[in-house]
Amino acid sequence: VAGFGAVKKMSRPSSARVGDLPEDALVALLLRELPAHAGIVQGPGDDCAVVLPPRRGRQLLKTDALLEDVHFLRKHAAAAVGWKALARPLSDIAAMGGEPDFALITAAFPPDLPVAYARGIYRGLGKAARTFSVGIAGGETARSPGGIFLSVALTGRIEAGVPSGRGGAQAGDGLWVTGRLGGSYRSGRHLRFRPRLAEGRWLRQNFAPTAMMDLSDGLGSDLPRLARRSGVGFLLEERALPLHPGSTIQEALTDGEDYELLFTLSPRWENELPAAWQVAFPEVPLTRIGRMSQHGKISLSVTGFQHFCG
Amino acid sequence: VAGFGAVKKMSRPSSARVGDLPEDALVALLLRELPAHAGIVQGPGDDCAVVLPPRRGRQLLKTDALLEDVHFLRKHAAAAVGWKALARPLSDIAAMGGEPDFALITAAFPPDLPVAYARGIYRGLGKAARTFSVGIAGGETARSPGGIFLSVALTGRIEAGVPSGRGGAQAGDGLWVTGRLGGSYRSGRHLRFRPRLAEGRWLRQNFAPTAMMDLSDGLGSDLPRLARRSGVGFLLEERALPLHPGSTIQEALTDGEDYELLFTLSPRWENELPAAWQVAFPEVPLTRIGRMSQHGKISLSVTGFQHFCG
Repeated sequence: VAGFGAVKKMSRPSSARVGDLPEDALVALLLRELPAHAGIVQGPGDDCAVVLPPRRGRQLLKTDALLEDVHFLRKHAAAAVGWKALARPLSDIAAMGGEPDFALITAAFPPDLPVAYARGIYRGLGKAARTFSVGIAGGETARSPGGIFLSVALTGRIEAGVPSGRGGAQAGDGLWVTGRLGGSYRSGRHLRFRPRLAEGRWLRQNFAPTAMMDLSDGLGSDLPRLARRSGVGFLLEERALPLHPGSTIQEALTDGEDYELLFTLSPRWENELPAAWQVAFPEVPLTRIGRMSQHGKISLSVTGFQHFCG
Repeated sequence: VAGFGAVKKMSRPSSARVGDLPEDALVALLLRELPAHAGIVQGPGDDCAVVLPPRRGRQLLKTDALLEDVHFLRKHAAAAVGWKALARPLSDIAAMGGEPDFALITAAFPPDLPVAYARGIYRGLGKAARTFSVGIAGGETARSPGGIFLSVALTGRIEAGVPSGRGGAQAGDGLWVTGRLGGSYRSGRHLRFRPRLAEGRWLRQNFAPTAMMDLSDGLGSDLPRLARRSGVGFLLEERALPLHPGSTIQEALTDGEDYELLFTLSPRWENELPAAWQVAFPEVPLTRIGRMSQHGKISLSVTGFQHFCG
C-alpha cells in the first residue's frame, strides 16, 4: 500500500474499472472506507504496519481467504462480501474465546472489476471492523488473473486463562451448539452473520468448554474433526438439532456456513449452563445435541457423515 | 488447516496432482516441510494459531502476496519460490529495523499442479523460516482457478525504541543504500536474496536513520515514495549508484527486486557510519548515493523516473 496520500483528487466516472487506476490511486480510494483505530501506531504508508501488541496472555493469529464463485458470487452485494470476509476469521477468534485486534487485507481484483464494487467490498470490511472494534492496519492490492480473491489476516488475544481449542473433549462431555443450523447459503445468512464473539468469550470465561470450534463446513464435517483431534467418539442426537425454519436435518449436517459455536462441556455443568446462558444471551438458542463417547465407539470417515451417525 | 493429523499414510506416486488429494491430506503433507518454533503455543489444528506476543515495544504486521507469472514462473525451482515468498515480507521487517516472529501462509494451488511442486514451495518456506527464526504458525490452502497464489502474513517486533519508517527524512540528510542494484530478475537473485534483517536492526539501533525502506519496485519508483512521504525532495548522484556487475544505471533504477535497504541519515553521522558499518558488515557494500533536498526543488512524477533525475 505504498504511496497512500499521493493522490489528492481525480475524477471517477461511475463506470471506472479497477484496471483504469494506478495502484496508488486505487489503494487511496479503498483506504477511505476504513475506520481509524487507536491501537494502530502507524497504518498504511510504511513497509510494515506498527501496532500495540497484547501486553499479557496469548496472541491469536488467523488467516482466511474468500474466493469469488466459491464463497460468494458477483451478484452478491459488494458490502456484504466485505462484511463476510472479515466476519469469517472473526468467527475463528470467537471459537477460541478470544478478542480481535488487528487485520491486514489482501485483495486481488480482476482489472475489469468496477471500482465501485471494490469500494463496496472495503465499505463492508470497514463496517465489520467498526462493529467488532478491529483495526485494519494495512494490506495490499494486486491484479487477479481470475476472479476476486480476498485474504484477511487477523490478530487477536486472550489476556488471561487458556484459549479454547479442538483437542480437549472427553468421553462423557455434553455436545452443544449455539443458534440454529441449515440453509445459510440459500437464505443469504452467510453474507450477514454476526460472529459469536461475545458468546465465545463468555463461554470460555464462565464455563471453560473442554473443546470449541466454529461451524463453517457444516456439522457433518466439523464435528468429526473436533472428535478426531480430541481422540474421542460421539453420539449425535439428530432430532435435537436446532434447525433454521425450513431446513432439514440433512441440511443442518451438510450445508455449512452456519458460523455457530460447537463446544463440549463436562456433564457437571449441564444443569447450570442453560440458565446462565438464558440470562446472558436471551435471544440466542443454545442446544445440547449429543455427547462425546469413547474413541473407536464410532467409526470415523472423511467421506461422509451418514457412515457414523445414521 | 483443519484435520492435520488425520492422514497417517497414503501412497503418493510422484505424478500426483494437488487436485487428487483431499484437502486434509495435502495440508498434512505440506506441514511436514515446516520447522517447529518455541514461541508457537498451538500450531495448526485449531481455529486459530496461538503464540506468545512481544511483551514490550511495538508489533509489526505485514502481508505480502506472490503471484505466478508476476513474481515467478513455473520453471523456477519450487523451493526458491517458497524462499522468496517469505524473504519478501522479511525484507519489509528489515526496513523497519525489526525482528520477525510468526508467519501464516495462504496458498492457492491450481488442481493440476504436481504435489511435488507444492511440497517444494513449503520446503523453501521452511528453509527461510529456519534461517531467520520465523515460526510458521498456520495458514490455509485453497484451490486456485488461475495460477499459484501465495500470501504470507508476518508478525515482527521492535522491543525498544521507535520503528523506522518512510516519513522522517529531512532536507540535508544523506541518502544511502546497502548492497548493489540492478539485474536481480535476470540473474535469479530475486529468488535467493537474503533480507537485510541484521543490517536493518543494526542501523536502527546504532544510527537511527530518519527514514528507511526496502527496494522492491526499484530505486526509481521507491525513492520518490520515500521523499513524498517525508515531504522532501532529493538529489540523486547517478554515477555513485553501486551496480551489480553487468548492470546499467538504468537497470539499477528500474529493474526492481533488489531488496536492499534505502535510508536517510543526518549529515552529522556521515563520517562515522562507513567505518562502523565496515566492522559490522565487512562483506556488504554501503554507499551514499545522494542527498535529500527541500520539498518542491525536484518535481515528482508517478509516470517515470527520468522526469526528475535525468
